[in-house]
Amino acid sequence: MSDASRILNPTLRSKIMSADEAAALIGHGDNVGMSGFTGAGYPKVVPAALARRIDAAHAAGQEFRVGVWTGASTAPELDGALARANGVELRMPYQSDPACRARINAGEMEYLDIHLSHVAQFVWFGFFGPLNVAVVEVSGILEDGRLIPSSSIGNNKTWLDQADKIILEVNSWQSPKLEGMHDIYYGTQLPPHRQPIPLVHPNDRIGEAYLRVDPAKVVAVVETHHPDRNSAFTPPDDASRQIAGHIIEFLQSEVKRGRLPANLLPLQSGVGNIANAVMAGLLDSPFEHLTAYTEVLQDGMLELLKSGKMTTASATAFSLSPAALEELTANLDQFRERIVLRPQEISNHPELVRRLGIIAMNGMIEADIYGNVNSTHVMGSSIMNGIGGSGDFARNAYLSIFMTPSTAKDGKISCIVPMASHVDHTEHDVQVIVTEQGLADLRGLSPRQRAQVVIENCAHPDFRPALHDYFGRAMEGGGGRHTPHLLQEALSWHLRYQQTGSMR
Amino acid sequence: MSDASRILNPTLRSKIMSADEAAALIGHGDNVGMSGFTGAGYPKVVPAALARRIDAAHAAGQEFRVGVWTGASTAPELDGALARANGVELRMPYQSDPACRARINAGEMEYLDIHLSHVAQFVWFGFFGPLNVAVVEVSGILEDGRLIPSSSIGNNKTWLDQADKIILEVNSWQSPKLEGMHDIYYGTQLPPHRQPIPLVHPNDRIGEAYLRVDPAKVVAVVETHHPDRNSAFTPPDDASRQIAGHIIEFLQSEVKRGRLPANLLPLQSGVGNIANAVMAGLLDSPFEHLTAYTEVLQDGMLELLKSGKMTTASATAFSLSPAALEELTANLDQFRERIVLRPQEISNHPELVRRLGIIAMNGMIEADIYGNVNSTHVMGSSIMNGIGGSGDFARNAYLSIFMTPSTAKDGKISCIVPMASHVDHTEHDVQVIVTEQGLADLRGLSPRQRAQVVIENCAHPDFRPALHDYFGRAMEGGGGRHTPHLLQEALSWHLRYQQTGSMR
Ligand SMILES: CC(C)(COP(=O)(O)OP(=O)(O)OC[C@H]1O[C@@H](n2cnc3c(N)ncnc32)[C@H](O)[C@@H]1OP(=O)(O)O)[C@@H](O)C(=O)NCCC(=O)NCCS
Ligand SMILES: CC(C)(COP(=O)(O)OP(=O)(O)OC[C@H]1O[C@@H](n2cnc3c(N)ncnc32)[C@H](O)[C@@H]1OP(=O)(O)O)[C@@H](O)C(=O)NCCC(=O)NCCS
Repeated sequence: MSDASRILNPTLRSKIMSADEAAALIGHGDNVGMSGFTGAGYPKVVPAALARRIDAAHAAGQEFRVGVWTGASTAPELDGALARANGVELRMPYQSDPACRARINAGEMEYLDIHLSHVAQFVWFGFFGPLNVAVVEVSGILEDGRLIPSSSIGNNKTWLDQADKIILEVNSWQSPKLEGMHDIYYGTQLPPHRQPIPLVHPNDRIGEAYLRVDPAKVVAVVETHHPDRNSAFTPPDDASRQIAGHIIEFLQSEVKRGRLPANLLPLQSGVGNIANAVMAGLLDSPFEHLTAYTEVLQDGMLELLKSGKMTTASATAFSLSPAALEELTANLDQFRERIVLRPQEISNHPELVRRLGIIAMNGMIEADIYGNVNSTHVMGSSIMNGIGGSGDFARNAYLSIFMTPSTAKDGKISCIVPMASHVDHTEHDVQVIVTEQGLADLRGLSPRQRAQVVIENCAHPDFRPALHDYFGRAMEGGGGRHTPHLLQEALSWHLRYQQTGSMR
Repeated sequence: MSDASRILNPTLRSKIMSADEAAALIGHGDNVGMSGFTGAGYPKVVPAALARRIDAAHAAGQEFRVGVWTGASTAPELDGALARANGVELRMPYQSDPACRARINAGEMEYLDIHLSHVAQFVWFGFFGPLNVAVVEVSGILEDGRLIPSSSIGNNKTWLDQADKIILEVNSWQSPKLEGMHDIYYGTQLPPHRQPIPLVHPNDRIGEAYLRVDPAKVVAVVETHHPDRNSAFTPPDDASRQIAGHIIEFLQSEVKRGRLPANLLPLQSGVGNIANAVMAGLLDSPFEHLTAYTEVLQDGMLELLKSGKMTTASATAFSLSPAALEELTANLDQFRERIVLRPQEISNHPELVRRLGIIAMNGMIEADIYGNVNSTHVMGSSIMNGIGGSGDFARNAYLSIFMTPSTAKDGKISCIVPMASHVDHTEHDVQVIVTEQGLADLRGLSPRQRAQVVIENCAHPDFRPALHDYFGRAMEGGGGRHTPHLLQEALSWHLRYQQTGSMR
């Protein structure tokens, strides 16, 4: 497995050891900063070795739990393994792993669900205490000790900078041609010393292609040869295709009305199948010279780049199917100039999202008739994944679009409800809501006016009469008519689902 | 009343007319952009003349309603007069007027409650349609036609730029010495042409001291001599003093822990008596060389500047008591260099709030045990004022603090509730909650952990047992334990208040 060409620095070469030896350097109570963002670039073997160590400690009646900080979601080998071992005291800032989610919802793991652009700076500020260990995957080490990043950047710069001890996983599975694709900005400062970030186009390179590390802090180098998670996308279903269609039609009409340039503005596209379908829809659209300034680069966006419809894309991670990854790897020389991977505090930075004028498109769990959006909770109490970067983008975007099928769970759940059971994006930050039924443009509308278009354009026809009925009675209910609610009924749809298995 | 020295430009002098003549240039269906921010710098006579015109039209059975866009809240002569005439079709972005609030809550006026930093750019983008008329108060007109702003800037640059027709009120009551205090930034662009905003310290001047106007668009100049609203502040009561005390103690401990510089970071302080009390508290604190980057400059801040405790303050408006105003006017030469008034898209700009590392302190109506904050709604349905700039600051601040007395309405309402009846600041954006009972530092805590400290530190002792009881039963209620809720009870406190007049 050892690939000598990947670790050129002699000092770091001398620290090569096994995953188990490396994991032995992590102790109970440590905060561990791991690489990894949407299933890309996470450490492949040390987390599992750590999980075994934790299992053994627990079997021996010893306490052993760690804090796990990452870029965003990872993979079963990391979140899954550590959650199953019940070895995570606190997890942040984003997860999407079934085992991890189950622990959180059972009350067995503390979860800090925070904006992805906040993570690095809150750690720099010292808000979360010391970072004891970093475990970071890289694709190689230069002779002078600098690191070639792998398929995601996430918070790696911050982990390497802030951690007391560093464990590097050098993954020879990652293409050596990734070199040169990354742009690590080292100009950040703590206030009051901050300066403008000199990025004005999505493809501007404002930093360096390599991660810096203090070799004295590196306690272990572990060689691996393991693929990223790389789950396949489901081919777009009818609902996703319809959602994509509504969005593209809307963007075309905005161009016609002179409110968007002909090549639009930089696109941000959330994770998942719908987001991917929107990108696929753009492939057949008349738009040209598109750009992206986003978090994750999925299959659909790669297709846009390949076709020439999209000129450049900036992200912090890849999230590709095995087929798309093959495509990328085979043509890296051609893609390298057109894709930039950045630290997530830059890919998601409010300053840049606002300046560039992003068109933000994110999935959601539900919206209420007044335009409040829930991205994170099921029935008010259970976490699904987390807010991720959706708030970074929605709050500062030129246009903020949220999308979902109009129903979930075989039509038993309406994704348009009287009152959202949790709010992640407030009425002040949601401009467009889209379902397969249609699109509601909420700009310039008061809450009462929004209710009409959300119900008419977005709700499933089966649920429309009940929503109209709720709104009508709330208007006459004697409370204020700015955002009319009937408090005894506002959450009754969710309660009914809990009690009967259906909102109908 | 005419003060020749105030209107030096001959073309504009030739357009002087009465308020009634000027109001006659505004028609039914017009969108009217008015100056005014927290009772400062609003037009004093044209709105009332317009209200009379509307009254007459309504009496004659004619339709007459306009859209009213401002900087923020104004005064009875503007919001009150037009609301009483039922002449406002749509109001944005912030109001705090009883008559206006009553119309909104009766369903008779549409209200767009949007972030103050969004207003200008959404108008530039064309999201709200054309701006037909601007009515802007200035304190003078230079020979070359440039305008000397008055006691607030708000959106005046945007209104002058975007409106088809412009009505200027030249108010000779405003001190001529305001000249030179303003900084109007003309470097904004639409995306994709935006550049970094070159401001790195609160007192940087990056623009011009005067507002530009195209004289050809000016249809009327009206001379006035009327004071700003200038309401007095109530002297800090015990609760406000205690809240201020908790905040100052917290800031001191952050300095001790090395998480804040000794002179803190630029302060943002919301409107109202509590915010004012915090500033008064800082006067007796050991902090020196404070700075402010905020929206409104209230009495407490002026005292800090006067004492030398605060070196500079940036805002978009004054909001002073008559006594403080006298103090300011008497010493304007001394204050001029240390106070900058800017357009609200700059005073509240996410890029700048994030870069400067603001300490944001805003009032709220209620928070729930999980840290979601309601700043705008009473019992879920009725608007109080609006979100104002609180979201601009909280979302991008170094530290975001929300404060309220623990109870309202003589103790019948708990301002700490199981579930907020409306969410303006999500759990992801609220770091510190303070009441007279104490301070809850929510950084690094999961929702379950937050519930404990919010109940223990912030809730009134009379309501603590019931809140603990709710949380305990929600944990055992069978739903998820990430944010444990009992959906049938989550809003029952508000419902009880509606039904019985008390949450007890
Ligand atoms: C909201 C989010 C979960 C939707 O994900 P998705 O993959 O597009 O949507 P799906 O329709 O497949 O729904 C995912 C799950 O939520 C469930 N769901 C969807 N709507 C629901 C609702 N209103 N109530 C309850 N469950 C719902 C689905 O049934 C599905 O559950 P399953 O996995 O048990 O089948 C996802 O977009 C997300 O995590 N967003 C927050 C983070 C984010 O926006 N990141 C991107 C920013 S860069
Ligand atoms: C939230 C806000 C209304 C609090 O105002 P305040 O003057 O500090 O607080 P007060 O305690 O005087 O409360 C104002 C009113 O709300 C009522 N109130 C307060 N808490 C309440 C609650 N939990 N439920 C119902 N009513 C409540 C008070 O009784 C009072 O009503 P009254 O005028 O009929 O007596 C005010 O801060 C605000 O409008 N904030 C939003 C905008 C903002 O933050 N701007 C600053 C950013 S720059």
